[in-house]
Amino acid sequence: MAVRSIGIIMNGVTGRMGTNQHLVRSILAIREQGGLALPGGDTLIPDPILLGRNEQKVRALAEKYHVERWSTNLQECLAAPENEIYFDAQSTTMRVEGVKAAIAAGKHVYCEKPTATNVEAALELAQLARRAGIKNGVVQDKLFLPGLLKLKRVIDSGFLGRILAIRGEFGYWIFEGDWQPTQRPSWNYRKEDGGGIIVDMLCHWRYVLSNLFGEIRSVSCLGATHIPERYDEQGRLYTVTADDAAYSTFILDNNIVAHFNSSWCVRVNRDELLNIQVDGTHGSAVAGLHHCKTQNRVNTPRAVWNPDIPATHDFRADWMDVPANETFENAFKYQWELFLKHVVCDTPFPWTLLEGAKGVQLAELGLRSWEERRWIDIPSLEE
Amino acid sequence: MAVRSIGIIMNGVTGRMGTNQHLVRSILAIREQGGLALPGGDTLIPDPILLGRNEQKVRALAEKYHVERWSTNLQECLAAPENEIYFDAQSTTMRVEGVKAAIAAGKHVYCEKPTATNVEAALELAQLARRAGIKNGVVQDKLFLPGLLKLKRVIDSGFLGRILAIRGEFGYWIFEGDWQPTQRPSWNYRKEDGGGIIVDMLCHWRYVLSNLFGEIRSVSCLGATHIPERYDEQGRLYTVTADDAAYSTFILDNNIVAHFNSSWCVRVNRDELLNIQVDGTHGSAVAGLHHCKTQNRVNTPRAVWNPDIPATHDFRADWMDVPANETFENAFKYQWELFLKHVVCDTPFPWTLLEGAKGVQLAELGLRSWEERRWIDIPSLEE
Amino acid sequence: MAVRSIGIIMNGVTGRMGTNQHLVRSILAIREQGGLALPGGDTLIPDPILLGRNEQKVRALAEKYHVERWSTNLQECLAAPENEIYFDAQSTTMRVEGVKAAIAAGKHVYCEKPTATNVEAALELAQLARRAGIKNGVVQDKLFLPGLLKLKRVIDSGFLGRILAIRGEFGYWIFEGDWQPTQRPSWNYRKEDGGGIIVDMLCHWRYVLSNLFGEIRSVSCLGATHIPERYDEQGRLYTVTADDAAYSTFILDNNIVAHFNSSWCVRVNRDELLNIQVDGTHGSAVAGLHHCKTQNRVNTPRAVWNPDIPATHDFRADWMDVPANETFENAFKYQWELFLKHVVCDTPFPWTLLEGAKGVQLAELGLRSWEERRWIDIPSLEE
Amino acid sequence: MAVRSIGIIMNGVTGRMGTNQHLVRSILAIREQGGLALPGGDTLIPDPILLGRNEQKVRALAEKYHVERWSTNLQECLAAPENEIYFDAQSTTMRVEGVKAAIAAGKHVYCEKPTATNVEAALELAQLARRAGIKNGVVQDKLFLPGLLKLKRVIDSGFLGRILAIRGEFGYWIFEGDWQPTQRPSWNYRKEDGGGIIVDMLCHWRYVLSNLFGEIRSVSCLGATHIPERYDEQGRLYTVTADDAAYSTFILDNNIVAHFNSSWCVRVNRDELLNIQVDGTHGSAVAGLHHCKTQNRVNTPRAVWNPDIPATHDFRADWMDVPANETFENAFKYQWELFLKHVVCDTPFPWTLLEGAKGVQLAELGLRSWEERRWIDIPSLEE
Repeated sequence: MAVRSIGIIMNGVTGRMGTNQHLVRSILAIREQGGLALPGGDTLIPDPILLGRNEQKVRALAEKYHVERWSTNLQECLAAPENEIYFDAQSTTMRVEGVKAAIAAGKHVYCEKPTATNVEAALELAQLARRAGIKNGVVQDKLFLPGLLKLKRVIDSGFLGRILAIRGEFGYWIFEGDWQPTQRPSWNYRKEDGGGIIVDMLCHWRYVLSNLFGEIRSVSCLGATHIPERYDEQGRLYTVTADDAAYSTFILDNNIVAHFNSSWCVRVNRDELLNIQVDGTHGSAVAGLHHCKTQNRVNTPRAVWNPDIPATHDFRADWMDVPANETFENAFKYQWELFLKHVVCDTPFPWTLLEGAKGVQLAELGLRSWEERRWIDIPSLEE
Repeated sequence: MAVRSIGIIMNGVTGRMGTNQHLVRSILAIREQGGLALPGGDTLIPDPILLGRNEQKVRALAEKYHVERWSTNLQECLAAPENEIYFDAQSTTMRVEGVKAAIAAGKHVYCEKPTATNVEAALELAQLARRAGIKNGVVQDKLFLPGLLKLKRVIDSGFLGRILAIRGEFGYWIFEGDWQPTQRPSWNYRKEDGGGIIVDMLCHWRYVLSNLFGEIRSVSCLGATHIPERYDEQGRLYTVTADDAAYSTFILDNNIVAHFNSSWCVRVNRDELLNIQVDGTHGSAVAGLHHCKTQNRVNTPRAVWNPDIPATHDFRADWMDVPANETFENAFKYQWELFLKHVVCDTPFPWTLLEGAKGVQLAELGLRSWEERRWIDIPSLEE
Repeated sequence: MAVRSIGIIMNGVTGRMGTNQHLVRSILAIREQGGLALPGGDTLIPDPILLGRNEQKVRALAEKYHVERWSTNLQECLAAPENEIYFDAQSTTMRVEGVKAAIAAGKHVYCEKPTATNVEAALELAQLARRAGIKNGVVQDKLFLPGLLKLKRVIDSGFLGRILAIRGEFGYWIFEGDWQPTQRPSWNYRKEDGGGIIVDMLCHWRYVLSNLFGEIRSVSCLGATHIPERYDEQGRLYTVTADDAAYSTFILDNNIVAHFNSSWCVRVNRDELLNIQVDGTHGSAVAGLHHCKTQNRVNTPRAVWNPDIPATHDFRADWMDVPANETFENAFKYQWELFLKHVVCDTPFPWTLLEGAKGVQLAELGLRSWEERRWIDIPSLEE
Repeated sequence: MAVRSIGIIMNGVTGRMGTNQHLVRSILAIREQGGLALPGGDTLIPDPILLGRNEQKVRALAEKYHVERWSTNLQECLAAPENEIYFDAQSTTMRVEGVKAAIAAGKHVYCEKPTATNVEAALELAQLARRAGIKNGVVQDKLFLPGLLKLKRVIDSGFLGRILAIRGEFGYWIFEGDWQPTQRPSWNYRKEDGGGIIVDMLCHWRYVLSNLFGEIRSVSCLGATHIPERYDEQGRLYTVTADDAAYSTFILDNNIVAHFNSSWCVRVNRDELLNIQVDGTHGSAVAGLHHCKTQNRVNTPRAVWNPDIPATHDFRADWMDVPANETFENAFKYQWELFLKHVVCDTPFPWTLLEGAKGVQLAELGLRSWEERRWIDIPSLEE
């Protein structure tokens, strides 16, 4: 029952997501719980070294969370043999360079999505990793949301019968920044800075759909810039150059149709910010971040279109909650633990850099579909 | 304050919709309430003559509802000068012939949708009517649903600001007919019999969108046959040849995006069988058959994506009901009264045979978009 | 579309069940609705002749319900060729004689259960009927209760997966007759008069179980006379000689276990007077007279035995109602209509005199199990 | 008002039940509350010494809960005169040996159930204890559940009149371990490891019935293995060799009939995981873990079987809650306190090793009844 340590270079965790989800709620949380219990009985203690370009920020972060090791020098971090894993949460434009250096140094690689700004670069990373024989993974956090884990359970149980169609509604109202402060950074709205909701969300829909339902064969996507001007962090008016809403339809294996609306200009009339309805021959499910509910065909009411009847039937009451029946971990921490076990014990971990490249590909083809005003078939990506 | 009568030839009202909505709840209801009060103070009494091919059925219907006049002879009906209006609720394949005869006889024409099985024929009817100088109209009942009338009120008030996008969800689960009886006729599922949800519903979405929001400029539509086999009225298995779900996106004037899902294979997790959400810069509205609710930007919560927070916020509670503030008539009766006033008093009635032709056109182009896998621009229809 | 009549001898319908369920709510109700629509389009009008030993009672019944034909002479009724069906709702001790005479006269036979007081006589009736080539049926009304029809639908849909076990709770408190009037006749409590709950209810459980779940292979039954003395219709104390509670366990095909408690000495802490819970690998259902509700395995809570936790979980809220989705007929009328169609159009009707004999057999073997204090295997009944 | 200490050897409390219920919530809870107030005014402080074979586990447990004394040597513990009580919560197969040693050393003995794996061994323990003159007791925790304490109160009050029958429903769904983790250890499902629900639960039903209602005279029991394969703690498929459901009927003194269903394959459509209904001539009661409710004969509705009446009567609303009127202790702690007083002050304690042997006997005869397919009379156990 040995206890061993593993060094992790955490590059670019001074940002909001990097700090909160990857550092505090994942790596530090694993340390606080006494390490990760490995299959076989050993315990693994992650030992992070924080890496960043801005010394002041990195040091402050390290001090705040009592992390002993920090650095501003990537090459030094990579040179130390105890650092077995390189994690990258930098801005997308800088990811390729960092990951390439890590692969060259023989480190295992785990990183945020999108893995690159275009599919060629993303695919190259996957190929380099394969040739180097290192273990690699990409964050696909939405798979590990409690609501989607429940939905996976419902799917796996056969409850739905043959799955016919999927409807996704994602989004919420992002204030424009003038009369109320906005809640997203302005670069999200500038194409030249890597912004746009298609690039952001189609990466997610790719792995959500392929992991839960099957491979995506074709995409039709319409983008829109509904709000053409916004106010930035300094209160200055700027022109929105990226899409702030995406209306996308996908055809999956088995002719399953998936339609997803993604928008930063929609007011929420749903249970949660993300709602996915799945209809099958034998039952349906509706899942969000936390919840999932079902309706079996034996409980399906015989609805008839009759506008003369007052609207008294409570259709929402016909759905039954799927209980948690277990305590769900933070989605990021959950995937971190799977990746660490994959590195140390070689347990399966299917969410590789190649899967990450597929997400980049879908976003790229979504943009092309919008431009060319037609359906685009999705070629398979070869490593 | 004179009381006058107007003869109406009601052709093809032995069907379910014709009997219930047009005869009983519209024309007979107007008679029972003592006629229609006209602008100026006169009263108009509609005097229907039931027309059909099956003598037994027409006579039985006339007897059941105490309608004195019935016939099986279209030409005789048209020859009688007291019959000023010709109404057609026959099956679509027979509509053109009936309407043409009525126009030729100088009758005013009111009819069900679709007005024809293809846009050329539908447009020809509009042109014939215009040349003949007769008044004409097409049923566009969904406009007069309480929920959509409330939505119209919200739009007209300026509450929404600039409208950005519209999401429509229509549909419910139609049982397959084996282990539970189905609730739609089998011809709905046979393309060769005029079936299919695209043909059925895109006619509706055309007038709903253009009356409430603006003209449709382009359409992208994906059809699907999710359930390939069903059981008919006699319990026999048959092959479904028509689409039972339609995933359609429209671009309207002012770049408003409208996405509508229409399906007979969806379980209802909504307030009503039809739900339309409209988002604008200053507010949003959600309307159904009966209800409408709104959220102003001052009431919009500042949502943030944070899966670590338990799902405690009740987003649905942030919406406020739009009160009726008046008693809404049956939608069919309401439009009948507008058409009768239009005929007698020349009040405006914009829902003409040309508008009906536009509905047929949208369905046709929707099918073409599905076949050609691309966006289709919608040419304007010239009478 | 012909209209034809069929004469039905109704023997012994002066009793409560005979009058209410068979005459008024079945035969007369069919007449009032304009007859029974036959497959093919014809209409069948049942023409009852009331038969009984007590002239005064029969005449009064006929007058009260405006039934033109009545008689006290079985042979005369049987001699009339227009009386094609003989129905028997006499007390059990007189049933065999009546049914035999009807079979001998070539009439089709429909009768109440139990069909005889012992299995030999019941089987003889089935054999005589088979040899005579007449159509025959036995009332098995509980199959057509709305709750059990819904349960049947759930079973047929495959919702439950492999069925494991069934629990039935039937019964209610029958007052002893002293300080509150009783609500059952005293003969029910006298073995010498054909009383006893085992004889009464095991006939029902036989067809309920075999029609819904599979054949019964073995029975273990414990009877009890919990209340040894009661007061009769005249307020006189009498000794109870029959069982007033039965605790029976059945093993069915596929090793399904069914346990049924039947009691006239139980206070109702259930949804309905009869409650049947069915547990299967994939889901469970609970059905009563009118209602049925389900719990799928995806909605099953992870219960843990922990008496330290306050009892806050509402286990009943985890169940979802099965909607009616159709209008259910009176159970007796429903089966009458099936039998009439069987007689006239030769449609299937599996609930024959042989099935009735199986019910008598189960009651007999239940009594024997009680006496011999052991499980009894059930031999198959050969006609 | 003296304060005295009593040494208690706690053998085998490293398991879940031993740690939580016996150590933490009983012995340590008594210490935390300042000891046990004895009749006469003295205070007794239990002074546990934790005993186990695995030194690491015992030490860790002792450290976690700040228990000063721990050991891996039974003989040393027994040799110390300050250790007056020996408590055994080891696995059943090791209990006899431990208890025998303790009796031989003159210690008072308290232990978990089953006291042995067969009735001969269980009886021998009782005989050895009697001859040695030591005080002894067996855990019978369900007697001290709040719901059953309330039920005892109702019985003692005479509310029920003469008791006629008892119905017990125990159980919940234990997941199979494939698509959802299971919530019971796999040995429960292996006969060769002492598993099986008959062995587990009939021990409980013995003391529940005899303490509340009277001695059990006969048993008929049917076991079943509804789920033949499950997945163990390591996710490996294994064959279930023990029964996972028991359908048992008991006849008690005064001809009271008790039927109990115990199952790990039942979905809960009850108020609590255990529900016991008792019907008597004057009233009925329904008790669970926490709650108890009653219906007096004056509040009993006059139910009539009439399927034509819609199910509007709320039978559950006819029952009235029995209030706690006191704060119920943890059931284990409650019995511990009774045993300690029994040891020190010789107050009554009827739940002896002989009673424990009766539980083992009932389980054994239940298994025999299942095998021999008949009722088994229960011989009285002589010490």
